Amino acid sequence: MRDVSIIGVGQIPVAEHWDKSIREMGYLALSAAMRNAKVTVLDALYVGNMLSGELARQEHLGALIADFSGLRGVEAVKIEAACASGGAAMRMGYMAVASGLCNFVAVMGVEKMTDQQGPDITAGLAMAADGDYEALHGLSFVSINALLMRRYMHEYGYTKGDFANFAINAHANGVGNPNAMFRAPITFKAFSEAKSVADPINLLDSSPIADGAACAILAPTAIASEFSDKPIRVRASSIATDTVSLHDRREPLWLEAAALSASRAYDMAGVRASDISFFELHDAFTIMSALSLEAAGFAARGHGVRMAQDGSIGRTGKLPITTMGGLKARGHPVGATGMYQIAEVALQLREEAGPNQIANASLGMAQNIGGSGATVVTTILERIK
Amino acid sequence: MRDVSIIGVGQIPVAEHWDKSIREMGYLALSAAMRNAKVTVLDALYVGNMLSGELARQEHLGALIADFSGLRGVEAVKIEAACASGGAAMRMGYMAVASGLCNFVAVMGVEKMTDQQGPDITAGLAMAADGDYEALHGLSFVSINALLMRRYMHEYGYTKGDFANFAINAHANGVGNPNAMFRAPITFKAFSEAKSVADPINLLDSSPIADGAACAILAPTAIASEFSDKPIRVRASSIATDTVSLHDRREPLWLEAAALSASRAYDMAGVRASDISFFELHDAFTIMSALSLEAAGFAARGHGVRMAQDGSIGRTGKLPITTMGGLKARGHPVGATGMYQIAEVALQLREEAGPNQIANASLGMAQNIGGSGATVVTTILERIK
Repeated sequence: MRDVSIIGVGQIPVAEHWDKSIREMGYLALSAAMRNAKVTVLDALYVGNMLSGELARQEHLGALIADFSGLRGVEAVKIEAACASGGAAMRMGYMAVASGLCNFVAVMGVEKMTDQQGPDITAGLAMAADGDYEALHGLSFVSINALLMRRYMHEYGYTKGDFANFAINAHANGVGNPNAMFRAPITFKAFSEAKSVADPINLLDSSPIADGAACAILAPTAIASEFSDKPIRVRASSIATDTVSLHDRREPLWLEAAALSASRAYDMAGVRASDISFFELHDAFTIMSALSLEAAGFAARGHGVRMAQDGSIGRTGKLPITTMGGLKARGHPVGATGMYQIAEVALQLREEAGPNQIANASLGMAQNIGGSGATVVTTILERIK
Repeated sequence: MRDVSIIGVGQIPVAEHWDKSIREMGYLALSAAMRNAKVTVLDALYVGNMLSGELARQEHLGALIADFSGLRGVEAVKIEAACASGGAAMRMGYMAVASGLCNFVAVMGVEKMTDQQGPDITAGLAMAADGDYEALHGLSFVSINALLMRRYMHEYGYTKGDFANFAINAHANGVGNPNAMFRAPITFKAFSEAKSVADPINLLDSSPIADGAACAILAPTAIASEFSDKPIRVRASSIATDTVSLHDRREPLWLEAAALSASRAYDMAGVRASDISFFELHDAFTIMSALSLEAAGFAARGHGVRMAQDGSIGRTGKLPITTMGGLKARGHPVGATGMYQIAEVALQLREEAGPNQIANASLGMAQNIGGSGATVVTTILERIK
């Protein structure tokens, strides 16, 4: 099996792109990544996307973006795993290069959510849940996460304010990221007084829907230095799944697929959680940050929230998270999110994270979650010295 | 790169499955394939599907089918490439095993089309075309194929009746396939008198929409004989794309992606078109059969139709096609079709095709087409002697 590296990344700002179609957004991220990697041809393009059919009446997105990007003939496929679609595309690209079947592969996440006419975004997102046993009964993703947050507070004796620092930290990091949707800090007071969405979740627990596209170019590590001064080695890539319905989980507060996916990734890379320098986690809601930190082995059960409280998660903390704003402040264009995470980890490891740069980062991890934890993709990246 | 083989296949009949949900259909094909392969655990499941979001309000199908099938924890992803989704899932599974990342992988195609309420199937299928430049202007897939067929007749001087044998041959083969939707032969008279759908295409040029699921289990060839008496080696797997819009093609009557995908597959297998024993092609409409035969190198341009006329395509002909009924008679559950083709090639090579068995088949090829030729997946399989 060949070793694989990232030789270039590209992204467009997460925003409401009223003037751009989904194919244009994909093209812009792809061409930026190709310029960054100094490549002009590709063997394959894997496009992570969840809702193009629902929101743009367009499937067949792999061929469409390849075509619009002038890559006629290239292998191109759409990859879907709900909000983990971007991360799943990364895994497919990793396999393609690792196998020896492809040399230069683009992995992209793209989603266009804000200027669609007609369809209800909340109902669209509910297609990540179990259609027959959750969505049909009115459960939306906010309400699923509200159930989890309420249960967490009950089990472990926290109050809502204990979650505030996840959002405050994300917004503080969003300020320095030119591609973030929200670039303003928030205060504890603002968090406490934010409008309720589904009790106990309020607006500032929640990541915003958005438009976005991010892309990375993968190549065999053996030739990566010919294309990049700072190639980033893929030390691990793994996917694990759990039940789609929350009510079928063995323990609702334990993200089993996140634990399994992280454990597979640690084994693959030959590292432990304590070796990870920083962690781009899937903070769709503040409760997800707490559960992710626990499942990935950074905090004991019920202690995830404490890492927000004691400053561990800040840029100079023990385990910086959401260093470029996370889903909360950078924004959450669902199928694109996993590739924003990958691009951000790569930028940190390349020391190109601007004002958000973390010191001495050598090993970065991204974890992309689909549904309420049914699909989890873990990627561990390392700067080649 | 590891050599990959099919160690088991499973399918459910193509039909109107009023009593089964999409997850049940997927489970039934998967469990049949696992029993056939004598495996009880899997490393990954790749689910080819196009329209579960549109028709069943359900995305996240990889995790959903893994969950329902009792495979909690397994890597699982949905793969979409319009009507080539099943074939594309095969390619992802091939990469997973070839890379060494996975040992036992299920590749599935599944689609549920017939008992949906509300959505318009024709509009759903149009999401395989270019939403902005084709579907928005009212082009459906039948009308796109009607334009192609009319042009073919004009360019090469054929009449509609010249296409009849593609449909007659498919129905003759459907009779002997217990999983085919249509098991009755048709006559030239019936073909000639069939109701028009989009002139010159009539009902008997057209494959039916349907429900279906088919699955194959892949493993490294080195251990395949431990699981199957008749392992089937994957000699080649390739994907190529072309423009999504028909009007952007260099030559509308030349399926460039089919030619490219076939040529990559021949190179990979080290064979030529003349080495192929039989060909499961993508006869969504009779015109597609003619164009596929030409693009894959079995007939000169404008001569594809002649292979239907001179008997070459029959079970005892020079190049048997659609040996189990093809899309026309076995049925076309869009995202599942590519995996039905793979399962059928495997059954022929294992000499388990019942009354439809071809003599001396050693090398079988399947070609799965998405859109009007925008994505084409070619797979070449061989019986290990």
